Amino acid sequence: MVDLENTLFMLPGPVKIHPRVLRVMSMPALPHRSPEFSKINEEIRDLLRYAFQVDDDYHVAVFSGSGTSGLEAVISGILNKEDSVLCIINGKFGERLYEICNIYANAHPLEIPWGQAPTLDAVEEIIEKYEVTAIALCHNETSTGMTNPAEEIGRIAKEHDLIYILDGITSVGGIELYPKEWGVDAIVLGSQKCLAAPAGLAAVAISDRAYQRIGEGRTYYLDLKKHIDKIEKGDTPYTPAIPLFLAFKEALLMLKEEGIEKRWERNKMLATMLRSAVKALGLQLFPEEKFASNTVTAIRYPKGIEDKEFRGILKEELGVIVAGGQSIVKGKIFRIGHMGICSEVDIMATISAIEYALLRLGYEFEAGAGVGEAIKVLSTWRMHNEQGMQKV
Amino acid sequence: MVDLENTLFMLPGPVKIHPRVLRVMSMPALPHRSPEFSKINEEIRDLLRYAFQVDDDYHVAVFSGSGTSGLEAVISGILNKEDSVLCIINGKFGERLYEICNIYANAHPLEIPWGQAPTLDAVEEIIEKYEVTAIALCHNETSTGMTNPAEEIGRIAKEHDLIYILDGITSVGGIELYPKEWGVDAIVLGSQKCLAAPAGLAAVAISDRAYQRIGEGRTYYLDLKKHIDKIEKGDTPYTPAIPLFLAFKEALLMLKEEGIEKRWERNKMLATMLRSAVKALGLQLFPEEKFASNTVTAIRYPKGIEDKEFRGILKEELGVIVAGGQSIVKGKIFRIGHMGICSEVDIMATISAIEYALLRLGYEFEAGAGVGEAIKVLSTWRMHNEQGMQKV
Repeated sequence: MVDLENTLFMLPGPVKIHPRVLRVMSMPALPHRSPEFSKINEEIRDLLRYAFQVDDDYHVAVFSGSGTSGLEAVISGILNKEDSVLCIINGKFGERLYEICNIYANAHPLEIPWGQAPTLDAVEEIIEKYEVTAIALCHNETSTGMTNPAEEIGRIAKEHDLIYILDGITSVGGIELYPKEWGVDAIVLGSQKCLAAPAGLAAVAISDRAYQRIGEGRTYYLDLKKHIDKIEKGDTPYTPAIPLFLAFKEALLMLKEEGIEKRWERNKMLATMLRSAVKALGLQLFPEEKFASNTVTAIRYPKGIEDKEFRGILKEELGVIVAGGQSIVKGKIFRIGHMGICSEVDIMATISAIEYALLRLGYEFEAGAGVGEAIKVLSTWRMHNEQGMQKV
Repeated sequence: MVDLENTLFMLPGPVKIHPRVLRVMSMPALPHRSPEFSKINEEIRDLLRYAFQVDDDYHVAVFSGSGTSGLEAVISGILNKEDSVLCIINGKFGERLYEICNIYANAHPLEIPWGQAPTLDAVEEIIEKYEVTAIALCHNETSTGMTNPAEEIGRIAKEHDLIYILDGITSVGGIELYPKEWGVDAIVLGSQKCLAAPAGLAAVAISDRAYQRIGEGRTYYLDLKKHIDKIEKGDTPYTPAIPLFLAFKEALLMLKEEGIEKRWERNKMLATMLRSAVKALGLQLFPEEKFASNTVTAIRYPKGIEDKEFRGILKEELGVIVAGGQSIVKGKIFRIGHMGICSEVDIMATISAIEYALLRLGYEFEAGAGVGEAIKVLSTWRMHNEQGMQKV
């Protein structure tokens, strides 16, 4: 059995958690209706605006549930059966967004092959055909390792005055993103992704015009308005997952201390290192490279390398944990998360481990080539970086 | 500033500590004169016999102090001014052993260049010249990354019926060692080395004939007999460092669960990976390769690579912590610990990081060559290993 406390944990969420974040969860019982917890809620509220890069004209809320709960809260809150919503599907999480929209509104899918970006023409076409009132887009597709062109689609949404909903579960805090400038009305994050907090919380930011639209009584536990109005006063509608709130606050603080631009830059650098290694090893990215994500990298298996065996060697022989493919790409790709507090040496170690597994499985390549390329990329990056000798 | 909780910690002690070991230290106050603490002491006593690979004919003790306190307890306990003790000096810790022996006995140094092993002839010569009654040897020289030929010197000690004292601070639990077969009368370990417990404790194992020799009143806090007699009954003479005892027990348990032969083998494999990378990068080990240690590797800086700059890049740019040289080799070598719970990917990451730093400093080599060689070594090792696909 693998010692899960002595591994290199490289999933695209949950991700490695900092000891400082883990430690706050060991606090003895804390009453959630207390001035002490109110203060924590208020701090979370303010730090969330920083993480989402929004001002007071956006409303925020936290849900004790997974990222999916945040998506449902948003969609059930601001859309209704009168709405005609365009859902772009090019991965598993675009699919999920569509499934949720389908319950609360009239959803119109724009299906494109996984790993490819939608053309703006196709988006326009559906908008006109179905008199669309809203767009729902998965910003960063964890299932394919690609980032959708959220800014460009936002421009279309603005032109047509559409409600624009973004699943930012693996982008917020990891990938450059400006909700207001991009015309985003609702955006959702998951605690266990770019913030590197434990799994179990979702958070959302809602534009004021979306807030004004919130209908009542469509759901209960995930009631968007109640959650927004309560956290504004430092409270929660129901019992929150108390230790997770404590950890979430600490992780949000760590993001602020690092600086979100620095974290975006770090994730981008890690992604660039990894992509350069992929090429040097003669492997292929799954998505179009132009749209390759900075927080998760999906790599196609070369001929003859079997998923279970490959990931088995990484886990059992080296204690390195990466993800396989989901749904239609199961067995065809593997995925590496490099968001949150993932470091340069974590990436170097991961590349070394991948090389080791490929060697074990008889793949032909020059051992060390991937790591060699990655350290060259990092070295060049640092030389051209104004942070100079410091870790970014 | 480097985030010391998100680093790759590769010192030759203190070493990376397992979360399981850290966690037990967070126990609320525990009275040391209690049946609960007695039980812990008894467990430590029995687990120590396993770590030292000795039976009931050896006595053990734990000191709340550094490894050095254990050395002084042993030397002050079993040697006296009538003793003529041969001290082999080929590194900083051989030197320290000599300094302690010099206080409590008549010490005769055999000085040889750092990183080289003593010849058995030279040892015999001093034994005869000074009518030596005891030998003190540092088994694994952390300062030079070499392992002294303790078994061979033990054979000489046996032939001459000498008291044989081993500093096993960075060997016990990390390098193959059989005290009884080798004629060892006293051996000392440090908690923060091969056991991967926190720093602050020393432990010793003493043969019965050495125990019978223990004099009284030469020291007080480090009184060897008191400590041995007390732990035999699950007690300590003075207030012990309670949280450290809890962590020490957990770390000893982890060694037993892994199995000491497996840990020896793992350390050897990690050392072999690292040494193969050193060669592939055109670097040189500091000690004679034949005597290179399995728990710490010392590497000479190539021309033009400056210690402070090199280790600064590792620490500041990558969060990788390795040691420099001490005393006469300061600035000439750097040292990497690979004892305790150090893993294969820790070594791969360390080699990658070294390559990165060399690249940054303009050293000419083929980037990736070190890691490439190390993963080949590991792959071959695993293929020929009966543990097969499992982590050793």
